[in-house]
Order: sequence, then C-alpha cells, then structure tokens
Amino acid sequence: MKNPNKKNVSAIISASWIFTSGPEDQLLSDYAVVIENDKIIDLVSQKKVFDEYEANNNYQLNNHILIPGLINAHTHSAMSLFKGFADDLPLQDWLNNHIWPAEKEFVNSSFVKDGSILALSEMIKSGVTTFNDMYFFPDATAEAAKELEVRGNIGLVVLDFPTNYATDPEDYLVKGFEFRDKWRNEELITTSIAPHAPYSVSDEAFSLINTYSEELGINIHTHLHETQWEIEDSIDKYGITPIQRLNNLGIIGPSLVAAHCVHLNDQDMAILAKNKVNIVHNPSSNMKLGSGIADVAKMLKQNLNVSLGTDSSASNNRLDIMEEMRLAALISKGSSMLPESIPAKEAIKMATINGAKALGLDSEIGSIEKNKKADLVAIDLSTIENQPLYDPLTTFVYSSSRSDVSYVWINGKIKLMDKKLINMDEERIIQLAKKWQRKLKKI
Amino acid sequence: MKNPNKKNVSAIISASWIFTSGPEDQLLSDYAVVIENDKIIDLVSQKKVFDEYEANNNYQLNNHILIPGLINAHTHSAMSLFKGFADDLPLQDWLNNHIWPAEKEFVNSSFVKDGSILALSEMIKSGVTTFNDMYFFPDATAEAAKELEVRGNIGLVVLDFPTNYATDPEDYLVKGFEFRDKWRNEELITTSIAPHAPYSVSDEAFSLINTYSEELGINIHTHLHETQWEIEDSIDKYGITPIQRLNNLGIIGPSLVAAHCVHLNDQDMAILAKNKVNIVHNPSSNMKLGSGIADVAKMLKQNLNVSLGTDSSASNNRLDIMEEMRLAALISKGSSMLPESIPAKEAIKMATINGAKALGLDSEIGSIEKNKKADLVAIDLSTIENQPLYDPLTTFVYSSSRSDVSYVWINGKIKLMDKKLINMDEERIIQLAKKWQRKLKKI
Repeated sequence: MKNPNKKNVSAIISASWIFTSGPEDQLLSDYAVVIENDKIIDLVSQKKVFDEYEANNNYQLNNHILIPGLINAHTHSAMSLFKGFADDLPLQDWLNNHIWPAEKEFVNSSFVKDGSILALSEMIKSGVTTFNDMYFFPDATAEAAKELEVRGNIGLVVLDFPTNYATDPEDYLVKGFEFRDKWRNEELITTSIAPHAPYSVSDEAFSLINTYSEELGINIHTHLHETQWEIEDSIDKYGITPIQRLNNLGIIGPSLVAAHCVHLNDQDMAILAKNKVNIVHNPSSNMKLGSGIADVAKMLKQNLNVSLGTDSSASNNRLDIMEEMRLAALISKGSSMLPESIPAKEAIKMATINGAKALGLDSEIGSIEKNKKADLVAIDLSTIENQPLYDPLTTFVYSSSRSDVSYVWINGKIKLMDKKLINMDEERIIQLAKKWQRKLKKI
Repeated sequence: MKNPNKKNVSAIISASWIFTSGPEDQLLSDYAVVIENDKIIDLVSQKKVFDEYEANNNYQLNNHILIPGLINAHTHSAMSLFKGFADDLPLQDWLNNHIWPAEKEFVNSSFVKDGSILALSEMIKSGVTTFNDMYFFPDATAEAAKELEVRGNIGLVVLDFPTNYATDPEDYLVKGFEFRDKWRNEELITTSIAPHAPYSVSDEAFSLINTYSEELGINIHTHLHETQWEIEDSIDKYGITPIQRLNNLGIIGPSLVAAHCVHLNDQDMAILAKNKVNIVHNPSSNMKLGSGIADVAKMLKQNLNVSLGTDSSASNNRLDIMEEMRLAALISKGSSMLPESIPAKEAIKMATINGAKALGLDSEIGSIEKNKKADLVAIDLSTIENQPLYDPLTTFVYSSSRSDVSYVWINGKIKLMDKKLINMDEERIIQLAKKWQRKLKKI
C-alpha cells in the first residue's frame, strides 16, 4: 500500500558507512542511498530516509561500507582463459613461446566471448562495475558485457601486424568502427580507439587514429612506457622516447588513457603532466612481468590523474582491483620510504573517481552523488579479519579482501547478493573455463 | 568393523594435488596423506590407500591442493588489537603518538591473551599452523596458543627500557625463563630469546643473551636492519652497522632469526651468508611502514634461508602468509625486473620449509613427509577466481586467497573445516575485539 506522503523508489540501501569518493570525499555513518531505476536520487540519513521514501527493495547493510563501484581502467578480459597458462618466465620467452602461439591458435570470437564472461564474473565478485578493455573481437566482449550487465568501455584495437582478427591498421579501424556503430545505442557500452602500443603501431596509423579521436570525440587507450625495452627500442628507431614520439604525433593529451608508464624520465613526466594525460597504474602486472615499479607518488604530485588496472589474467592472475588498491598504497610507501604516501582514501579514489575521469565518464559514475548512475559495492567488515575496526577506510583498503564483497549494483540492478552472482550460473561459467583449459593444455 | 588386513588410522586426507615442499618438492596428483594421531605416517596414491588403511575420518578433497601448514616466522600476535588503529603515518608519529602511548595505557596480560586469540583465529583461517612470536606477557600468548591449539615459538622478549611487563634486561630474562620452565612440557610451545632490536638492547644484554642461547641451545629472534634510521643510528653510536656490531658480540650465527634485513650493504650480506643467519622477509610491513623493499633475490643467491612473516597487525593489517607469499614473489620480480625471480614454488617453500628451518623445527614440520607432524592446509581451487587451472602451484600462489583455505590440521587435529573454525566461537572472538576497540578508541 502506497503512502501518498512518501516517494516510491526502486531501492533503499542503508549501510553503516558510506564513502562517497565525491568532490568532498565524505565518510558518512548510518546513511542510506536512494535509487530510482538506474540512478542515485538521494543520500539521506537512515533516521530520515523512511520519512521521505518507500521502496520495494530495502537493504539494511550493518557492518558494511558502501562505496562507488570499482573501475578496472586497463584490462584484456578475454585473456582470463590464459590465467596461469605460463608464469614466472622471462618476458620474451613468455610472449614468443607461450602467449602469442596460443593466441594464434585459439583466439576467435568464441574464445573472446567465453573468456570475457569468466573475467566479468570474477570482476563483479570483486566489486568491479566498469572495465576498460582492449582486445580482439570486441563484439564478443560487448556481448559478454551485455549478457552480464557490466559497464564496459571497449577499445577498438589497432596493430600494424595481422592477427586472427584483422590484417592491417585500416582493417582494424574498419572493423572497429563497424563495432562502434552497431553498439552505439547500448546503454552500458562505450568505446575508445586502442592503438596497442608505440612499438606495434606506426606513425601513420597513430596520425590516423588521432584524427578519428578528435573528430569523434572519443578517448585513446594504449600501453605506454611499460618496459625499459620499449623505451630503448624507440630511442634506437626514432631517436626519442615513445612519449616524445607520441607527443609529436599529437596523441598526448587529456583524451589519452595510458596504461603502465612504469619508466618516465623528467621530460616524459613533464609532457604527461602538461597535457593532463590519464595514467593507469597496474602494480601487480608491472611487478609480475618484471617491468618495474612505477613512481606513482611523483605522478600524483604533478597532479596527474592516476587510476588502477588489473591488466589481463595472463600477467596478473587476479582481476581484483581491491588488491591493486592495497598494492598501489604499499609499493608507493615502500619505494618512496614514506608511510604517508598514498593513504587509504587516495587509493580508493584511484580505484573509483579517477578511473571514471580517465574514461570521460565522471559525470555518470565514480562517486556516490545525486543523479549519478547507481554503480555501488557493499563490503562486509564484520569478519574476524576486519576486527577491530577503528577506521572503515583503512580497514577496507588494508584488511578486507574481495571475498568480503557482498553486494554489487550496476546501473541500479543488483548483480551480487550475499556474495552470490545474480542470474548467472557459476557452475556453467566454471565449465566454460574448463572447456578451454582442456583445449589449451595440449600446447 | 575392522578389517584385519588394513591398518586402522586416525585420518586419511585425499586431495587432487599435494605439494610436499619436502626435499624433492613433489607435486603429487590424486594422492592421500595418512595420519595417525599427531603424525603423517604415509603418503599413498588414492588408488591404493584404502587397500592398506582404514580411518574413522576420511576427507575427499577434490579440486583442493594440500600443502604443509604455513609458517608465520615473525609476528607480534597480541598487537592484532591495534589493527587499523593508526595507518598511513610517518614512522615517528606512528610510534610516539599512537602505538607506544596505547601500549603504555592498555597492554597487560588480558590484552595479550585476547589479542592473541584474535590473531591466531585469523591465522588459522588463512592457513597458518605455526607462528613465531615476540611480545610482552608471553604466558598470555602461550595460553591463547594452547587454547586454540596452534603451534607457537614464543620469544622471551628483552629490552633495555621498562614496559608494563618488566623493568630492565635482567627482569625481562628472569620473567622469560620462568615462562620457559612453566611451558617446557607443552607439546605445541617452544621458545626463543627475543632481544627486541639492536637500537633497544645494549651490548651487555646481547652478550648475556648470547651466553644463554648457547647454554640452552635455543634460537635468538630479533629485528635487524629494518630501517635506514636504525643503521645510521648504529653508525653514529658504534661506528659500525648493527649487523657488524652483533657479529662482534657473537650473536650472528645459524641460531639467529633476523626479521626484516631490508637494507644490507655487501659486507653485511656477506656476514649473514657466511654465518647462515635465518632471514624473515616481511614484505607488507616493510612497505607499509616505508622501511623499504628488501633484496630477497640477492639473499637467495647467497643461499640464505629466507622465510616469511606478517609482522604485527599494527603495521600490516592482515595476518595472511598467502598474501606475503604472493607479494614476496611480485616485489622481487618488480624490483629486480626479472619475472623469473622467486617462482611460485620458491615462494611456497619460503612460507613452509624455510620457516621450519628458521625455527629449528624442520625435523618436525614444514613439509609433508612420513614421521613429520600433521600440520596441513587444504586450499579450494574450484572457484571462478581459480579457473582455468593449468598449474596448481601458480594458481595457489597468484590466484587464490586466504578465503579459499577450507581445511586446516595442526598436530593431527582438525582446526578448520569447510572454512569454519572448529571448537571456536567466531562471534565470541569478534566481541572480544570489539570490547578492546571501545576502550582504545578513546585515545
């Protein structure tokens, strides 16, 4: 029975703590988020919320912290089928003798669809609500995102050399734009142009991409300064670093989302800072591949927008932004020898609003604010591992784990409840992975 | 009904994979561990085990990897009540204005008992079966270990200055030896002498400790070269590094368990290697406090025995050796820029047999071998996060989490079953933590 004095809404989520990650970074106690359809329409104290609103779906999440959905700002979802396929190997051996031959033999639309389903189900379970992807067969990735209802920014990948997916830069772009046109009205899907890396894309292709990016107003997503080798190779071939080369080509600017940036000299750092480039820090992947440890504290001092990525399962083995958040804080403290470097709150912002800014989606997602999309995650801080609890933000960053993620909403829809995926058959997803495992194990 | 042709035993644990971490580091598929009372008495293929044995307790752990119990080789359990109490602060501020005043006001026997119960319950849930502790009121720590039936090597702490526990080095030692005598017949409890650190213990006290250690044949557990400050302070006061000073005092030797060793010059490293010192690497704590990143790859090249520790919850926020294992591998690869540095198998050995060697307990624990104690952990690798599964060792190290630990046995007794603590009331433990949280929050 409706009460005429109260507004009927889709859902009311009451949590012991809410961290807005918004302009004021508020940590609210005993507040509630009011959701109507896909949007957050209000943020009210629990004492008052039921005076103003009534909802069919009420969530009373005691001992939980509610945060904006986590944003995985650099990944290759489909590669989750390569998780644990080849570990602890020197980079060239890993690429030449394992990953590239397997990609050549196995990667097709069906591989990408199944791999993306596996990846996205892992991401939802760890509180990721938006992923920024780059891989072949983007149609298949978008289908997985649509099926699982996860927000995805999908890269139109471009390479100089042929793969199972396309033959040359023009072919990649034609296929990319076909994909873009087909999916342009899909609410959860956006796109960027994704030239793979400076060492795999020619000047001509970069120039073409720059023109398209400006004309269409879409972001560019690339790997940049990931390894020392990449920089030395560029200096050998072009006489300048990749950042300097891309700057000359007009690619360096606020529309660029640059993954890694592990090695930066002062001039490179200055170019990125001046041009307000968005950097995606991938601590696990950079360490696991032996690429190095990025100086994030220095980037933040230059007011660079730094977000977090897992990279793919082939180089990280867990699509877990909570782990990247903790690691970003820890390795910055460890390498700068300053324990105050990247405090918990800053790490959470990297995993939320900074990711939204990188993707140009910060008017829609990345914080808990009125009129933003209802992408939300609740983490259970009631367990032994999270006791005692003096500060919910540091407990979340330093003590809790993805296994404490108990509720996830994307675009107002509940995707995880009581730690169980909604409308997804976990056993079927596991069997999908096992099917590919049997095929790939033969290599 | 007993079958006269079969030996009746306490338990048979059958697992899809068993990693022995023994002399041959075997990874066995479809094997079973046979337990009689507190001991492993056999390791047999699943096909044959029931021809030879019958047990009242049979565990059929499909999709699980069974490993030796993890060893937390450096911790201060009771400090779990300070978990999240003060984070992200410069070291001196953290110590002078937060940790030390709180220790002065609150640390007593009851604090240590309750804090240790909280810590040990967290450790069991993350697969730790042995802890190497150093703190005040060791009686209370031992009581917690006895109550929870966890294997503990407990330090007889020595400091130059007075605390709530003792007044001067002699008083610490007298209390320590009283403790040792009282607990010497307790099966799960062993002891070491634990001079706190070079900067907090005088030459005289170290010399006395060295004599006792030699006479009694017990190990010495200390903090060593944790921070740059410690080394500079020693050079100021003694003209030499702490390692050189302790070497002159006879402390440096195979009985020494040295936590941290973050900063080592070539001479220091040579002294440790020549004297077969046991190093405990604490990656999370060293990074979180801004101490630095230890060069573990170099230590391993010198054939030093390196094990893993969480340090206390005050500087780490999670007593999770699986996380330290993953971090040890990742940060070694990242800082050496060699992805082959510390492969998964080596990381597991650091967390098991190397810890046992450090504590002088490697004839009893640290590997799955006949006649060793049945300290065992089973990790569930069936979840989405662990798919696909090409190599159970890398999946365990890089993809799985403490939340995947589903069974734990210590000294033949089951302590965790289906992820639930046995004979421990989790809610009571959480309430213990909350009781102290309310007291400490006032500060």
